[in-house]
Amino acid sequence: MDYTRMYSLPNDITLADYLFHRLNQFKIHTVFGLPGEFNMPLIDKLLTIPDLKWAGNANELNAAYAADGYARIKGIGCLLTTFGVGELSSINGIAGSYAEHVGVLHIIGMPPSSIQTSQLLLHHTLGNGDYTVFHRIASELACYSTVLNDTDYLTKEIDLSIVKAWTLQRPVYLGIPMNFISYPIKSNLLNKDLDFTLESNNEISQDDVIELILKNIYRCKKPVIVVDACVTRHNIEKETEELFRRTKFPVLVTPMAKGSVDESLPEFAGVFCGSISSPQVREVLDSVDLLLVIGCTLPEFTTSSFHFSYKSKHCIFIFSDYIKYRNTTFADLNIKQLIKKLLLALDVSKIKNFQLQENNNGNIYIPNIKLNPTLLLRQEWVWNQLSHWFQDGDIIITETGTTAFGINQTKFPHNARGISQSLWGSTGYSLGACLGASFALSEIRKEQQVINNITQNVFPLFKDPPKHRVILFIGDGAFQLTVQELSTIIRWGLTPYIFIMNNHGYSGDRFLHHRSDAGYYDIPQWDYLGLLEVFGAKIYESKKIITVGDFEKMVNNPNFAIDSVLRMIEIVLPPMDVPQALMDKWRLEQEEEKKKVDHNQPMDWDSTTPGSTISTQTVNSTPSSDEQETPSPTP
Amino acid sequence: MDYTRMYSLPNDITLADYLFHRLNQFKIHTVFGLPGEFNMPLIDKLLTIPDLKWAGNANELNAAYAADGYARIKGIGCLLTTFGVGELSSINGIAGSYAEHVGVLHIIGMPPSSIQTSQLLLHHTLGNGDYTVFHRIASELACYSTVLNDTDYLTKEIDLSIVKAWTLQRPVYLGIPMNFISYPIKSNLLNKDLDFTLESNNEISQDDVIELILKNIYRCKKPVIVVDACVTRHNIEKETEELFRRTKFPVLVTPMAKGSVDESLPEFAGVFCGSISSPQVREVLDSVDLLLVIGCTLPEFTTSSFHFSYKSKHCIFIFSDYIKYRNTTFADLNIKQLIKKLLLALDVSKIKNFQLQENNNGNIYIPNIKLNPTLLLRQEWVWNQLSHWFQDGDIIITETGTTAFGINQTKFPHNARGISQSLWGSTGYSLGACLGASFALSEIRKEQQVINNITQNVFPLFKDPPKHRVILFIGDGAFQLTVQELSTIIRWGLTPYIFIMNNHGYSGDRFLHHRSDAGYYDIPQWDYLGLLEVFGAKIYESKKIITVGDFEKMVNNPNFAIDSVLRMIEIVLPPMDVPQALMDKWRLEQEEEKKKVDHNQPMDWDSTTPGSTISTQTVNSTPSSDEQETPSPTP
Repeated sequence: MDYTRMYSLPNDITLADYLFHRLNQFKIHTVFGLPGEFNMPLIDKLLTIPDLKWAGNANELNAAYAADGYARIKGIGCLLTTFGVGELSSINGIAGSYAEHVGVLHIIGMPPSSIQTSQLLLHHTLGNGDYTVFHRIASELACYSTVLNDTDYLTKEIDLSIVKAWTLQRPVYLGIPMNFISYPIKSNLLNKDLDFTLESNNEISQDDVIELILKNIYRCKKPVIVVDACVTRHNIEKETEELFRRTKFPVLVTPMAKGSVDESLPEFAGVFCGSISSPQVREVLDSVDLLLVIGCTLPEFTTSSFHFSYKSKHCIFIFSDYIKYRNTTFADLNIKQLIKKLLLALDVSKIKNFQLQENNNGNIYIPNIKLNPTLLLRQEWVWNQLSHWFQDGDIIITETGTTAFGINQTKFPHNARGISQSLWGSTGYSLGACLGASFALSEIRKEQQVINNITQNVFPLFKDPPKHRVILFIGDGAFQLTVQELSTIIRWGLTPYIFIMNNHGYSGDRFLHHRSDAGYYDIPQWDYLGLLEVFGAKIYESKKIITVGDFEKMVNNPNFAIDSVLRMIEIVLPPMDVPQALMDKWRLEQEEEKKKVDHNQPMDWDSTTPGSTISTQTVNSTPSSDEQETPSPTP
Repeated sequence: MDYTRMYSLPNDITLADYLFHRLNQFKIHTVFGLPGEFNMPLIDKLLTIPDLKWAGNANELNAAYAADGYARIKGIGCLLTTFGVGELSSINGIAGSYAEHVGVLHIIGMPPSSIQTSQLLLHHTLGNGDYTVFHRIASELACYSTVLNDTDYLTKEIDLSIVKAWTLQRPVYLGIPMNFISYPIKSNLLNKDLDFTLESNNEISQDDVIELILKNIYRCKKPVIVVDACVTRHNIEKETEELFRRTKFPVLVTPMAKGSVDESLPEFAGVFCGSISSPQVREVLDSVDLLLVIGCTLPEFTTSSFHFSYKSKHCIFIFSDYIKYRNTTFADLNIKQLIKKLLLALDVSKIKNFQLQENNNGNIYIPNIKLNPTLLLRQEWVWNQLSHWFQDGDIIITETGTTAFGINQTKFPHNARGISQSLWGSTGYSLGACLGASFALSEIRKEQQVINNITQNVFPLFKDPPKHRVILFIGDGAFQLTVQELSTIIRWGLTPYIFIMNNHGYSGDRFLHHRSDAGYYDIPQWDYLGLLEVFGAKIYESKKIITVGDFEKMVNNPNFAIDSVLRMIEIVLPPMDVPQALMDKWRLEQEEEKKKVDHNQPMDWDSTTPGSTISTQTVNSTPSSDEQETPSPTP
């Protein structure tokens, strides 16, 4: 049935109606943001659209984080802010979406186009008559930016903005001056589907690349496939899985991509963390003669300095729209088309030299270690045990800091998905993302009840009917930056698990930076669980977990496994206890630093070396990993 | 005594030492921000400087607000953030400082200069190898921006950054790559004072302007002096006062400048709010034949559309560095030099036509209205009564929204100072500003104990020894955006009064926008006073004030007047009750809207008219101002 008939739309609708119906068509059912002078008329329109919700965030930065988290589940998210103050408050979240390839449509309610000549606006401007400065700033952080202007192109610009955000998986900036909100639009334009068709890859160039890849696949002895974040962003998880299942090559994921490969498959070999990868992963990478990276997010990935020097000359990097092999770049090749074609051409019988090695290739085993229940908790044990508590389909969100390292040592179950902002690394991101992901999942649940299989085709991220839980791990330091978004989670009755890893401050930084006792890593001690009542929560569960016994009691309770209610769990950890990977990173940087001092004395003033915050001078002692007491934080 | 001897500095210090000692010399004793990968080595250095404090804010936007609030008291503030995530998070606060002419030095700890060529950095970048994008963005919102680069100019750039922030009263962006932090500097450079000397005004041009101003002063019958924010920013409060006390001309302040004129003086005639000024102010402005605006912040001020059409052709606008009279601009004239010269040339015996009128000119009288103690509170009465509770020297901070309107109907006592972000209007600003102002005052108190009269000369903002209290009025909606900064206030044992005007959401917007019942104005209801305990406060007072009797009991308690302890007071107000000025603004916009519809039918699609968010269609009824029940908010 036509969209206009389904929603009984009149022939003439307004521009705002058109915009929001387009979002609705595209399965964007929640818009994030706060009301402000220039976006309120847009929100009024939004509220009249069936199936569209206004999240009403607590501040704009959190709203941007939420739109990003939502987009990581649904493929695209939408943020609606007001001109000036609103958009600038959100900009760090948008920069994160840009850096991490997340499709966020940022709509900005703007003063009327005519304001500069016909009327003057005082507030929310810089007071210098410059109305384009915010657009200029935003265009640095968007794959496409536009401010509606020409009445001939209004709907085209809206369509293009949605298509760009989706296909390029980056933020799009769409400014809507208030005078266009009620501009009349023919509703039947909505019956025309958006055109997401990508230009076909150039056949000759594509064949060259496929030949190159296949040649390497057929001849390699010790290959590794590394899956990076663009595999999820560009929706080629199925194709990627087919590739490594048919070749049987071991597959690693980058931290940004953790969750995009089914870790219960035998080919899964661990998380690729460069030089701080686990010993098993380092063994997989050792003397590798084909490194095939799929869905690269970073140009830096192509260089040896990405925390790890691989010796192979046969590294193939497949980005979302180009391929790099040594110094050759094959431009303008869409990754999805390319991988599909590759799978058609692949003849596994021609793989001659590769021998499946039992040791390096197989299911990751996480031991279930029993400890004395009265012991205080340690990071290492907690992360291991969490692997046993995770369930199929979990959405697992981690924060910059210790949780980003800890999560890499867990094993994700079937259909789990990871969300973390590993590259941009903005502290506090994950609480906003948790809100966004929770909204997205509640919608997917609803849609699947209603539309059943249709949704599966539209959002193939989830292969099975979902029973997803949203599980957030956030440090106490990070939580304080964005705390008010907990209130939005409460307001909407969302039911994520919020694990607050309370180690009395910024322990990740505390550990990596040489002055580990510096007062600025300490943060005020809050009654985290008390926030639930203060923010108006009525139905919730909260627990403070201090000992091994507390932890075991919690995870062994079958009711605790069901996400029927909002849960906040404070896990008390020692300030100087960090996950093993972080410990390794620190040790490594110390060694490198030492080497530098020994071999290549830096200039006197250059004691703070590039790329490292570790200074040689004041590291007193390696924190003992078997120290069991929790040091009391500096008051 | 030389600075280096006073602080027993060695001959060679580091660049970071130099920077922070310069701040210390310049009476910046608190630096705002959060630790991050690239600013931690700077914070380490900062902590070694005597008399310099690291505030340790809860997030970067709040830190920027705090630096702004601090600067509004001390003349300059300092924010220290990390590259990328940190600086972008704070950018909306910096934009506010830019718009409102506040001198904030923004220091950014950056990756080493060499990183692009010698090493690669992954996190906190956009992942595209572009390391200058954040500097490009920041330069849009700074009067001066620099990233240290040339070793010959390191100290010169630091000195210039401080001088620019102080003299231009706008943000300055100072990027410090990590490799320069320990660069050796001769400490005796610190013994050379910074050169704040301004170029002398061109005598001929200045004489022309003075002649023009005097001619108008001598001949006018009905003059008004309007004082705007740059009077405080450029430290000419004393000179301005001398001008109106000698001429006896009535003086108005703009909302941004409220507090910069002593309201107990007979010349003070009220707050200039354009078309929504009080009837008394409108009478002063009626048929005015000289409007002399001193310390203009806005070019728009010079046009008739600034909310008020004055009929006089004799409007003189004195900006910080130029003067405008009709279509003539006199460029490059420093305001302070100009006003000093004007005062020398002024001969009041030549004022011929101006007659002091008892009605228009004289002390503002605020009635002390007695009401039944069981009545619920109303905005109108609360703001009136607050005038009687204010004390000499109070720092009174208000937020965007109803408090920004309410404060204009209060009378400020002698030496009071107002802080509000009237132009930029970023919601939540005032809680950060309250933290910054509280730090500034605690320093001024300390300095005055130590240095006595010297400080008076350095910071002539306060004419008498201060016994300042910091008093914040913030709406519940705004408070939620920046709530975590309350925790920083608690952590440092600061003792402002925090009045939370709880009217169940964004009432200012709710009132001005036509859909007054829209759900998006409602916010989650918090237990605001409960936050104190949750954030770890041990010594505090909190009260919920619902009735007239509650309010009177509170303000009549003499202990309540002494700011010996942090106080949080929740004032419960009806959602649709707003200060009179806001009511007037709404009525006026309604009328204008009606006129427009009657006389000049707008295009069909342009129902949302420029400059106004009021639509003609859905205003149901004027909210009754004597309605006494508090409507329950939409759940």
